[in-house]
Order: sequence, then C-alpha cells, then structure tokens
Amino acid sequence: MKLIRYGNLGQEKIGVQIDAKNYDLSSFGEDYNEVFFETDGVERLRKFIEENKSELKEISADSRIGAPIARPSKIVCIGLNYLDHANETGAAIPKEPIIFFKSTTSVVGPFDNIMLPKDSEKTDWEVEFGVVIGKTARYVEEAKATEYVAGYVLINDVSEREFQLERGGTWDKGKGCDTFAPMGPYLVTKDEMPDISNVGLWLSVNGEMYQNGNTKNLIFSVPELIAYVSKFMTLLPGDVISTGTPAGVGLGFKPPIYLKAGDVVELGAEGLGVSKQTVVSFNL
Amino acid sequence: MKLIRYGNLGQEKIGVQIDAKNYDLSSFGEDYNEVFFETDGVERLRKFIEENKSELKEISADSRIGAPIARPSKIVCIGLNYLDHANETGAAIPKEPIIFFKSTTSVVGPFDNIMLPKDSEKTDWEVEFGVVIGKTARYVEEAKATEYVAGYVLINDVSEREFQLERGGTWDKGKGCDTFAPMGPYLVTKDEMPDISNVGLWLSVNGEMYQNGNTKNLIFSVPELIAYVSKFMTLLPGDVISTGTPAGVGLGFKPPIYLKAGDVVELGAEGLGVSKQTVVSFNL
Repeated sequence: MKLIRYGNLGQEKIGVQIDAKNYDLSSFGEDYNEVFFETDGVERLRKFIEENKSELKEISADSRIGAPIARPSKIVCIGLNYLDHANETGAAIPKEPIIFFKSTTSVVGPFDNIMLPKDSEKTDWEVEFGVVIGKTARYVEEAKATEYVAGYVLINDVSEREFQLERGGTWDKGKGCDTFAPMGPYLVTKDEMPDISNVGLWLSVNGEMYQNGNTKNLIFSVPELIAYVSKFMTLLPGDVISTGTPAGVGLGFKPPIYLKAGDVVELGAEGLGVSKQTVVSFNL
Repeated sequence: MKLIRYGNLGQEKIGVQIDAKNYDLSSFGEDYNEVFFETDGVERLRKFIEENKSELKEISADSRIGAPIARPSKIVCIGLNYLDHANETGAAIPKEPIIFFKSTTSVVGPFDNIMLPKDSEKTDWEVEFGVVIGKTARYVEEAKATEYVAGYVLINDVSEREFQLERGGTWDKGKGCDTFAPMGPYLVTKDEMPDISNVGLWLSVNGEMYQNGNTKNLIFSVPELIAYVSKFMTLLPGDVISTGTPAGVGLGFKPPIYLKAGDVVELGAEGLGVSKQTVVSFNL
C-alpha cells in the first residue's frame, strides 16, 4: 500500500494512493502514528480498504499532501553513508555509522516550501531513502531487522551547512530548522519493496540533476543500520531512520552551491515517488 | 506548583505535591504534555486545585513516581556549559552553545533504575538544571525568553562515554539509551523560582559527593539558551532544555570513574528536589 496524509499542516487526515489516485480513509479513525504501527495498523488498514473498496472517496486534486506519517518520536539520520558523498565532503570514511537527529518539528509535506532560516546562506539539499519503523526495536539482530520495518519513505534531509559545521558542537544544529524534512509523497509498505538493496534515487535543482545515486552504494545497509541504531536507543513504531545521501550535495561543489529563494528542488526514488519543494525566504 | 506524575511507566497519572505530600489529579483529565502546556494548562490546573482542594486524595506512599512531564517532542541538551566541567573534560571552552539531543525514549522517573547498556563500561552521571518550555518558541528574544518557560526540572543526563566519544560521529549515540534521562521528582512552575541564576546542584554516588555546582557558573544562561536554541529549531510546549552539567563527572577523574551495577546515584538542586537511582546490569 501507499499511505498518504492530506489536509492542513498539523491537521492531516489519512488516505491511500491506488493507481495514482488518492483516496480518503479518515473513516478508519486513526492517524499513521506510533499507536497505529504498534497495533498492526498496516494489516488492519489493508483489511479495511478491502472491505470498503467500493465506497472510497477520491481526494480533491488540489488538496495539500502532508508527510505520510504523524510526527514521529525521532528522526535518526545516518551521516556519510555513501562513499561518493563522504569523499565529496572531504570527510573520512566512517568505520561505523554516524548518527545524528533531525528535530521532528522540521517535518513538512512533500510539496511544501523549504523556508530558508533567518540569516542562512548555506542551505543545502540531500535526497535520502527513509525507513519507517513498524514495531519497538531494541538490540535487534541484523538478520531479523526487516521484521521491524513498516515501510519506506522519500526524505529531503535539508541541511544548513554553516549551522551544521561552523557553529560548534554536533551536526544537530543544522538539520532541524522548520521545513527541513519534506517527507513523502507516500509511505510504501514493505511488502511492495521486497528488495531495497538496489533503489535509484536522484535530486535536481531548477531542472538540473545534482544527485543520482543508488542504495546499492550504501556503506551500511538498512538492516545493519536498524541493528546498529537499536543498540544506542529504542526505536518506536513510526520512528524514521534516514539512511544518508549520495554524492551531489551543494557543499561538494567548488565553490559550493546553496539554495536561494525561488529555487525548485525535485527529488525521487524508485518505488518511493517524487517530491518537489520551492525555496522561500525567511518569513516569520 | 510542583507537578508530579505517578503510576507505571507509560501509564502515569498526574498529580501535585503540596507540603511534601503527593495528591492525585487524574480527575483533571489531562496529561502534562504538549497540549496541556499549549493551552495554558498550568493556570487552568491552578484554578482546578483551588476549586477542589478539599477533595484531593493523597497518593499511596509506595506509588512509583514517573517523570513529571509526558514524553516531550525533544530533549535538547547543552554541552560543556560550565567552565569547570569543560576544563575537566579537556575540551575547549565553547564560543557558542553546543547542542545535542537525548532520545526521548530515555526518559524515566526520578527513582527508577539506571540500566547499563549492553557491553557498556563507561556509563557516567551528569546532574543538570532542566527547563520545560511552556509555549511554542521560534526566534525568541533573550529578553522575552522567560515568557516561554513553564517551569524547571531536575535531570540526570546519564551518558555512556565510549558511545559518546569513541564511536564516531556526534554525541547523540551516548546520550539516549533507555533509562538515561531520570527526570523529576517534580516540575516546579516558574512562579515558584523567580531567580534561577543562583541555584545550587549536586550529585553523589554511594554517598560520596562528586558534583557540587551552581547555575551562577553557567557559561550561557537559561534565557540565552532559549533564544539560541530557538534559532535552530522550534521548541514545542513540553520540550526540555537540559542546560549542562558542572564539574565532577566520572570522565573527569584520573583514572575515570564509571557506574557499575549496585551503585546508588543521588542528585538534587535547590527548589527542584532530590532524585535517587540504583544502577543495574543490562537485562533485556
């Protein structure tokens, strides 16, 4: 299934995409959140859709599409997890996964604007393959890691490089600004993607392709990451692991290229759909 | 007011401490969470207590006390924010606040056990003065920062130093293990602590005093921190800023001293009460 959420930010209703059409599922009476995933919601929803298939109502085409999951307890990000990206940043190749967090207040929908933070001059893009956790994960074995997955989602791990790298301390400062985590267009349940080890993903700015990678080049695979992260913290149903970005971010160019108001970022991954964000100036 | 929560982990009911006695407030029908703080819950609760004072029921003395707030959207921690602590770790004095996150799954009650993570040999303590946010904070001015505070809470920022410092990447890896954020015994509403610039805080292990600091030695004050953090991410009602720890952590000794099963950690801060945790071996 392709799970979607639609409506105003913070008031999203749930739905499903079938044959490229979005249908409302608000009569299911739940949100795609921790409780939903924890209580086998995906399978309950599958049954609900089968039983109500003839009555599903299509969503108005001009509806805003939100992130396909409710605000998670955490978004765990993996740094420098593609060899080519580690090289372009000039960083050492990690010996074990690098973990950082995106503030969950950064989550927006796949077609929402990216707002430049105040005084930001180095806002950058990162297309990523995201994993949504399906059940509570602690000290998970790599061989069993897939059992803990609900599905997959496209993420733009928007990053302010000055905040991240030049303001002291850890990377978290440059990763969690409002609008810095466009997510979606949908959550693809894992049954629809039995093989995630060869997924192409790309990102363009103003029509020019900057990133063109493939999960086959991940340094640490999705099962390795789930096992690894779950040694350091408990992953809850609905939590997200964003697995890192391939080469082609703005920071990697000489001179670097950063986003400015009016830029249009498009990104996609095989099986995960396409998202598109327009960059806007700071306006609060 | 001194807000408390009690009952089993994850199923806590709310209450209030008056004259060192804990009273049940579950008939108020809410939890101390984002919605509560966002909707002026502290003042609504104050009125509720006044109106129902004669009918409040004392909580059984053997009740487990939980963290005084529901799981927040984030726990933002400040690193190396006391000069003496920065010196003992051998780190440079920060020019601006260092930000990292504690995974919110690490939160436990003030008298719960601290569980050593699997294969952990370097679990350490950190008494901290915690600030609970009362309303949504974005780009807050330092002079107005106190308006965004609901109250204050005692936190033990338990830290695994190998995970934090020797496993690559950011500090987040060593800060978010289960049981690594004992919080409480209570949330003190800000009206009860008009001056937080001179608050003593201490921590002992097995009766021996290791930390004995005072918020007057904070490098970056609470208003500065709220203003600073809110430039990088939106703080939600119920979110926590843990403001850093004074000297005396285990890492600072030569050789370092780390927690082992059976150790008893006690900590306190003027106005914020005292908490006490027993260290237990990994057991999952």
